Amino acid sequence: MTRFRGTVEYDGHDFYGWQRQSGRRTVQGVLEDALAEVTGAPTAVVGAGRTDVGVHAVGQVVHFDSLWEHADGVLQRALNAVLPRDVALVSVGVAPDDFHARYSAVRRSYRYALWRGAVRSPLRRRTSLHVPHALSVAAMTDAAARFVGAHDLAAFGTPPVRGGTTVRRIDRCAVEAEGPELWIEVDGNAFLRHQVRRMVGVLLDVGRGWYPPDAVGRALSGEVAAVRPRRVPAHGLTLMAVHYPSGADGVDGARVDMDTRTGSGR
Amino acid sequence: MTRFRGTVEYDGHDFYGWQRQSGRRTVQGVLEDALAEVTGAPTAVVGAGRTDVGVHAVGQVVHFDSLWEHADGVLQRALNAVLPRDVALVSVGVAPDDFHARYSAVRRSYRYALWRGAVRSPLRRRTSLHVPHALSVAAMTDAAARFVGAHDLAAFGTPPVRGGTTVRRIDRCAVEAEGPELWIEVDGNAFLRHQVRRMVGVLLDVGRGWYPPDAVGRALSGEVAAVRPRRVPAHGLTLMAVHYPSGADGVDGARVDMDTRTGSGR
Repeated sequence: MTRFRGTVEYDGHDFYGWQRQSGRRTVQGVLEDALAEVTGAPTAVVGAGRTDVGVHAVGQVVHFDSLWEHADGVLQRALNAVLPRDVALVSVGVAPDDFHARYSAVRRSYRYALWRGAVRSPLRRRTSLHVPHALSVAAMTDAAARFVGAHDLAAFGTPPVRGGTTVRRIDRCAVEAEGPELWIEVDGNAFLRHQVRRMVGVLLDVGRGWYPPDAVGRALSGEVAAVRPRRVPAHGLTLMAVHYPSGADGVDGARVDMDTRTGSGR
Repeated sequence: MTRFRGTVEYDGHDFYGWQRQSGRRTVQGVLEDALAEVTGAPTAVVGAGRTDVGVHAVGQVVHFDSLWEHADGVLQRALNAVLPRDVALVSVGVAPDDFHARYSAVRRSYRYALWRGAVRSPLRRRTSLHVPHALSVAAMTDAAARFVGAHDLAAFGTPPVRGGTTVRRIDRCAVEAEGPELWIEVDGNAFLRHQVRRMVGVLLDVGRGWYPPDAVGRALSGEVAAVRPRRVPAHGLTLMAVHYPSGADGVDGARVDMDTRTGSGR
């Protein structure tokens, strides 16, 4: 068996999230079906991030084991020919046997897109949240910076079902605005379920003036009543990239995110 | 009766083009139905450009006559509440009685989007044409410039059904590239049916090296065999803006494209 690593892009609109579920169309299910069809053998696919219903990805990373003995490029072309139009294998290559898409990952990057036009935008309706009221980008930027660091994020995400720590490290949280378009970018080692969408919810409330920026800091310091994080809709969220320590990526000949070369330990 | 002018954005994916047809879902039909519902009277909507099946718009301009006597903002909000999610009235205002969305227009701007990644992009599949082979942007830019001016464009478009001149004036034809994304932008006084999509088809063939850039100039000079323009798919095309002589826009209180203030005679 050879371990393969791949990068996957998908439009989450018509998927019931990442994780395989019987009777539901999921990204994992569609990928596993395509691999079975192309390689002739049932093949489990492990993803770095189990994205929710409606969440998109341009840089989801997966691994799978296969007896495939032809060139990687042939595997990629065959899979892309079989996969539906809303998912594509952007790159694929042989990985070390101990490479694990989820457990080897050291950092994940998400982006949430907002449309601030007075009127909703039909062409952005599947990928951006429409926010028709005024937002203070300065207050949002101030609040976003307070997320950076290692914190107990229990108030901002759904704790793991099986228990365990709710401390997560956020490496970057930034607000980028360009005309009526606005993006909130969050990088961290790992995320609780719904964490990014609740962080965005609080930043939007800060932008509207409902909380001062330092309410984020107080909430992270344990002041439970400082904010009530509401969860924004899934369709504005995209998993942009997953990063691995240098040496663990093992992709040869395929597109490699430059950050994987230097991202170790961040 | 009051004449109104509006700007309309739509995702062309699920429309059978602009023009009302019985039994088909069209943008004009959906707008007319919404106006009838909101104003209580059957209302004809005239659009500046009769976009084809699958073509998008962010700046389609329309006019219509109505006895509506409340504020323009109320009309806009009511229409956007009734319109389906893939079309929106971005602005609306009172126009002079002689304003005509189609005949008063002096310039139209279109953009065609291409994705040059090696692998198709699921998130761009509804708005960009995937071109996986190498393209010479320099050759395309050279060829594009040759379209500028007044020419007989019969070879590049479908002549009007009712006859008339096939001479059109192109004010700008430019190629913009940013990483794997590429846009072809075309401004002109008016366009033959399929003209932009055939111009893009020829520019792509120049980019692949199938024609030299000066073949465009020779075709426009009447050398019929110089190029065989193929029509690229509709989903990459967006009507960006329609421009009117200053004084003819008559929109008050709504979003006005700055170019309409200075675009007279261009």
